[in-house]
Amino acid sequence: MAAFALFGNRESGHSYKVSLMLALAGIVHDYTEIDLAQPRAERPEPFRTLAKYGEVPLLLDDGTPYVQSNAILLHLAEHGGVFGGESMERLARAREWLFWEANRIGFSLPNLRYGLRIAPGGLAPAVEALLRGRCDADIARLDAEFSDGRAFILGGLPSIADLSLCGYMFWPEQAGVILPPRINAWLGRISALPGWRHPYAMHT
Amino acid sequence: MAAFALFGNRESGHSYKVSLMLALAGIVHDYTEIDLAQPRAERPEPFRTLAKYGEVPLLLDDGTPYVQSNAILLHLAEHGGVFGGESMERLARAREWLFWEANRIGFSLPNLRYGLRIAPGGLAPAVEALLRGRCDADIARLDAEFSDGRAFILGGLPSIADLSLCGYMFWPEQAGVILPPRINAWLGRISALPGWRHPYAMHT
Repeated sequence: MAAFALFGNRESGHSYKVSLMLALAGIVHDYTEIDLAQPRAERPEPFRTLAKYGEVPLLLDDGTPYVQSNAILLHLAEHGGVFGGESMERLARAREWLFWEANRIGFSLPNLRYGLRIAPGGLAPAVEALLRGRCDADIARLDAEFSDGRAFILGGLPSIADLSLCGYMFWPEQAGVILPPRINAWLGRISALPGWRHPYAMHT
Repeated sequence: MAAFALFGNRESGHSYKVSLMLALAGIVHDYTEIDLAQPRAERPEPFRTLAKYGEVPLLLDDGTPYVQSNAILLHLAEHGGVFGGESMERLARAREWLFWEANRIGFSLPNLRYGLRIAPGGLAPAVEALLRGRCDADIARLDAEFSDGRAFILGGLPSIADLSLCGYMFWPEQAGVILPPRINAWLGRISALPGWRHPYAMHT
């Protein structure tokens, strides 16, 4: 089995996606917490050199670095793990959701949360309105996906699309967001998967 | 050869990425211009039903729909075309840039351009400051990539990473952006590839 080493941060939903996949797969791995308050140039090696965009998560797979949470999910799905053995068709559909996530809810929700919770001085009203408008639209789009009663994004079985989309969704109150019932039911199904942990319980 | 049908819009850099890949590959395809001023529910079929997020581009490959510009680039790279035959290693690296693009410069630059050029009422100053700050950081990150003198993002040969990242870059003046010399030189190399066209000359 490959040796995996993950560099993440407990407040990052992008890290959480990868941690969750490794947890669901029961893959033993090294974990290093990166202090995001530290300036990028002062972060420890090998993170500083290998994290191409200076961001968590970074996954080393037998020493080869992989960055961008959704690209890491695709790498793990293609090379085994809990969602290994996916068909090309399911991977193609998952990929569409991963790119949607990167541009839509993986932008709006984390930036809203960051602005309300962490950013010095908080958010300018016009910026908060922009982020909340996008976040509301993104949640409505995702909610509509469950109108046919399916259990997970791609059907009856979970996929990396679910792991990507739920990255920041176990902290709705931190972004001042109220999730609709179908989204909460979907999150309930994710959290019932064997090996699931809440982001704050992931590396304790 | 597969029958390709593309649904796009001439003002969309996301459409342009896919048009450019088809042009560089010399792949004959049907093209349908979608009027983005039309409400989503009134757009023509089969676009309305098959464009999963209601957005351009939509590519039909022998009738199977593919959405999300970067997912379409990956699909085309994996199934032939001008960048067919890429190694797994190059595809993995391209994928990281595609996700970076979706979350970073594929958000900041188009939204800045849209806000300055098209949005009713223009941009609130705080929103413009947010978008311009991100856009400047994104361009600086991309510019740094060329500090080692390489020709294209992944080395000496172009890849789908170049096509994704250049999607909105042939319109810098429309976003009030001045591109640094190394980025302009890279765009010059892209525009020298046989089959290249400017976005506004793509479907004329």
